[in-house]
Amino acid sequence: MALNVDSLDVFFNPKNVAVVGASNNPLKFGYQIVKNLLDLKFEGKIYPVNPKYDNIQGLKAYKSILEIPEDTIDIVTIIVPNIAVPSIMVDCAKKGVKGVVITSSGFKETGFEGRKLEEEIVKIAKEAGIRVVGPNTTGTLNMSNGFTTTFTVVPERKKGPLSFIAQTGLFAGVTLNWFLTSQKYGLAKVFGLGNMCDVNEAEALEYLAQDPETKIIALYLEGLGSGRKFFDVAKKVSRKKPIIILKSGRTQIGAEAAKSHTGSLAVRDDIFDCACRQTGIIRVDDFEEMFDVVKMLVFQPLPEKLNVGVVSMTGAGGVLSVDLCSRYGVNVSTFSQKTVEYIQSLMPEWGRVGVFIDVEPLVEKLLDKGYKVAFESAIDDQNITCVLLVLLILPNLMVTEDTVKQMVENIFIEGLRRNPGKAVILHTLGEKRILESINEFLEEKLRLPTYPSIERCVKVLAKLNAYIKYLKTCKDNS
Amino acid sequence: MALNVDSLDVFFNPKNVAVVGASNNPLKFGYQIVKNLLDLKFEGKIYPVNPKYDNIQGLKAYKSILEIPEDTIDIVTIIVPNIAVPSIMVDCAKKGVKGVVITSSGFKETGFEGRKLEEEIVKIAKEAGIRVVGPNTTGTLNMSNGFTTTFTVVPERKKGPLSFIAQTGLFAGVTLNWFLTSQKYGLAKVFGLGNMCDVNEAEALEYLAQDPETKIIALYLEGLGSGRKFFDVAKKVSRKKPIIILKSGRTQIGAEAAKSHTGSLAVRDDIFDCACRQTGIIRVDDFEEMFDVVKMLVFQPLPEKLNVGVVSMTGAGGVLSVDLCSRYGVNVSTFSQKTVEYIQSLMPEWGRVGVFIDVEPLVEKLLDKGYKVAFESAIDDQNITCVLLVLLILPNLMVTEDTVKQMVENIFIEGLRRNPGKAVILHTLGEKRILESINEFLEEKLRLPTYPSIERCVKVLAKLNAYIKYLKTCKDNS
Repeated sequence: MALNVDSLDVFFNPKNVAVVGASNNPLKFGYQIVKNLLDLKFEGKIYPVNPKYDNIQGLKAYKSILEIPEDTIDIVTIIVPNIAVPSIMVDCAKKGVKGVVITSSGFKETGFEGRKLEEEIVKIAKEAGIRVVGPNTTGTLNMSNGFTTTFTVVPERKKGPLSFIAQTGLFAGVTLNWFLTSQKYGLAKVFGLGNMCDVNEAEALEYLAQDPETKIIALYLEGLGSGRKFFDVAKKVSRKKPIIILKSGRTQIGAEAAKSHTGSLAVRDDIFDCACRQTGIIRVDDFEEMFDVVKMLVFQPLPEKLNVGVVSMTGAGGVLSVDLCSRYGVNVSTFSQKTVEYIQSLMPEWGRVGVFIDVEPLVEKLLDKGYKVAFESAIDDQNITCVLLVLLILPNLMVTEDTVKQMVENIFIEGLRRNPGKAVILHTLGEKRILESINEFLEEKLRLPTYPSIERCVKVLAKLNAYIKYLKTCKDNS
Repeated sequence: MALNVDSLDVFFNPKNVAVVGASNNPLKFGYQIVKNLLDLKFEGKIYPVNPKYDNIQGLKAYKSILEIPEDTIDIVTIIVPNIAVPSIMVDCAKKGVKGVVITSSGFKETGFEGRKLEEEIVKIAKEAGIRVVGPNTTGTLNMSNGFTTTFTVVPERKKGPLSFIAQTGLFAGVTLNWFLTSQKYGLAKVFGLGNMCDVNEAEALEYLAQDPETKIIALYLEGLGSGRKFFDVAKKVSRKKPIIILKSGRTQIGAEAAKSHTGSLAVRDDIFDCACRQTGIIRVDDFEEMFDVVKMLVFQPLPEKLNVGVVSMTGAGGVLSVDLCSRYGVNVSTFSQKTVEYIQSLMPEWGRVGVFIDVEPLVEKLLDKGYKVAFESAIDDQNITCVLLVLLILPNLMVTEDTVKQMVENIFIEGLRRNPGKAVILHTLGEKRILESINEFLEEKLRLPTYPSIERCVKVLAKLNAYIKYLKTCKDNS
């Protein structure tokens, strides 16, 4: 472990934490920070600090960090008015604190006075050897031990392979909440950076690169704190863990807006884009696209080459799928002669297998086995490494929801078992309530990612395609 | 009313309907067609036809059309095996039927034999002056009188301004079901065309153009049945009612797939695209984008020029919004000096209004009035004709869901009342359950369209922008 990475571990695996600005008032951020630690059952010791209280949420409260009966404090979370922060930093230095997360805002982002305050903090921290995350951050979160410095409501420990680095504050907070309540996989770590007065995005990336629980890394950036260092790190990391970036400030007007928001230096977008391509970073346009790509990477394997086979319940779905794949440069494979002949032998006389498998004629003859035959034929086909399947949840099936789940499971279970290295992506459509329930089942039980439009499936495949090609180039050149 | 349009009215406003192939067996399509007419409380007479039954779903059943005790039958829905259709057509001719909807499949789309069968039907219909919709269609639907020929489950009469024309069958069925259960506005009419052996998309468009209940027309096409006639009609219609088209077969491979699916003639995509632009058609890539655009058109007015003002709770949201607008060619307006000065006077000392209004500093000083002030200042501003607002539903507000709704209503109600001609589009994000509830409230109660990503808002605005510019050109040239 490199030196930087070593010194960052305290932000995720501290033995103890002091929360300066802890509170019993539910309207204060300092309330939620302590509550999160309790709710997530953080395994270390928690020391609330606030001279106004003797007791905070059932824990003994301290008047200052210096009063805490520990020889050293690993980490301190600070959520007090900006002008009070420097004196707390002095206490931290005295107490031998290793890391500080400053959630308070009112620093560099607010102009001259704030910048001076921030410089004062950095000076104290540097002299004492304290690492600082923030200020003006939503903080950090480690799902595996329940440690967090965030004031966003974290309803449960939901462990998973994704780690998230966010430069800005509030958005990461609400996005985190949306994520935890709507996505069917969990998180490893969240690294909120804020103003990056010390810890920057390159170090954060380096830290998550060596974290065994992190398999996929997503970032939201407005600018670069570390310049080309970030891309040097990314180049090494992307070979092992996919990196997905959403960066704003692509256009002139966007860059100006970013500058006035986080004081981020403008990076010429074509240069940034080129650097992403050269370092294997998957760049996306929006949070929605980010989580679309992440979901696919979480649930499905990454084939060495992307040869897509399209299977659709409707001709329209098949036509739209191959059309969009072609527009986005995703290779649609023709099925092998063997598959074509097999499928045609099961179809009514007039049935033909073209560039996609139309499930409807199969269903006419095989009823609910039609989907299964179509899916298995596609995924077993030697020409295919990835199946794009349009699944319609028809409301007039005279069966219960559990029966539908059973039917859906039957379609996929054997084909998936026989082809562990191949990928599957689904567009699903149907009556709202049952659709949501079936999507949940598909993702939680079968690990099959579902999307509400064909275009979103194909855009995900296009991003994967570029990443797979990048990995191949790396391999060829090594 | 033109002649064609006159003869099509029977597909939506018949006095009576015969359902040939009606059934008491819930697994048959002929069951659901009758059930829909009963469930939707069709105001005309229903005559089920099936020699196997005396009574179908409580209605007297007839052995053939000829036995029905009416002088004329306005419309007949046919859902029997393909080879039985010609003899039923002969009965229709004898009975003086005005229109027939053939839901049965197994015609042109299946090859030579089916094509011959279809030609036979067309010959009988032409000679008898019967208009035919289909074959191979999901049929028609009129929400205002509950008349339908569709076998898709239609759970309720949900009236609204959108009419839908779909060339292909099943997709329209499931899409319809998804639509009715997930969108917060209703339908006027659905026109499923199928193989278009008689009624084609140009006539359907012409019919909906003069339908007073239809305000917006959406189409899914794989090819054109009517050639340039369609664009001649579209050019006249689009000035009064927006037309949104999803057409597949854009690429070579997609066109081939379309050909083998519906036998659609390939139309060179660049020519089709150009024709859309010249006739004011809004072209979209996917059903998701189609309904994104429709939702905005349903809920919001169309300004004469699109000058967007961005308001965001987070800097990141503001930066992403202006960045994406710029990339998609949507004009982001600067706020007037008056607005800038007013907002800055309410912000903390360090607050600045740049190219967007950041709500956060306002909330710091004004608490929950911050959003209201930001929104009203933007929509009242003379430079702005459309507000793009990023609304975060924060989970740690210590209030009930009803209180959140009250707060949300307070933000918008007065600004909207003062500016009826200006448009508003929202990106909303938050904890899943409350987010869904608030989105529903925003759309149903306040008619404010909500989208799950900024990019989807901006893509909608880009489509509107092109349409608004087209309308202006028409006006300038007239």
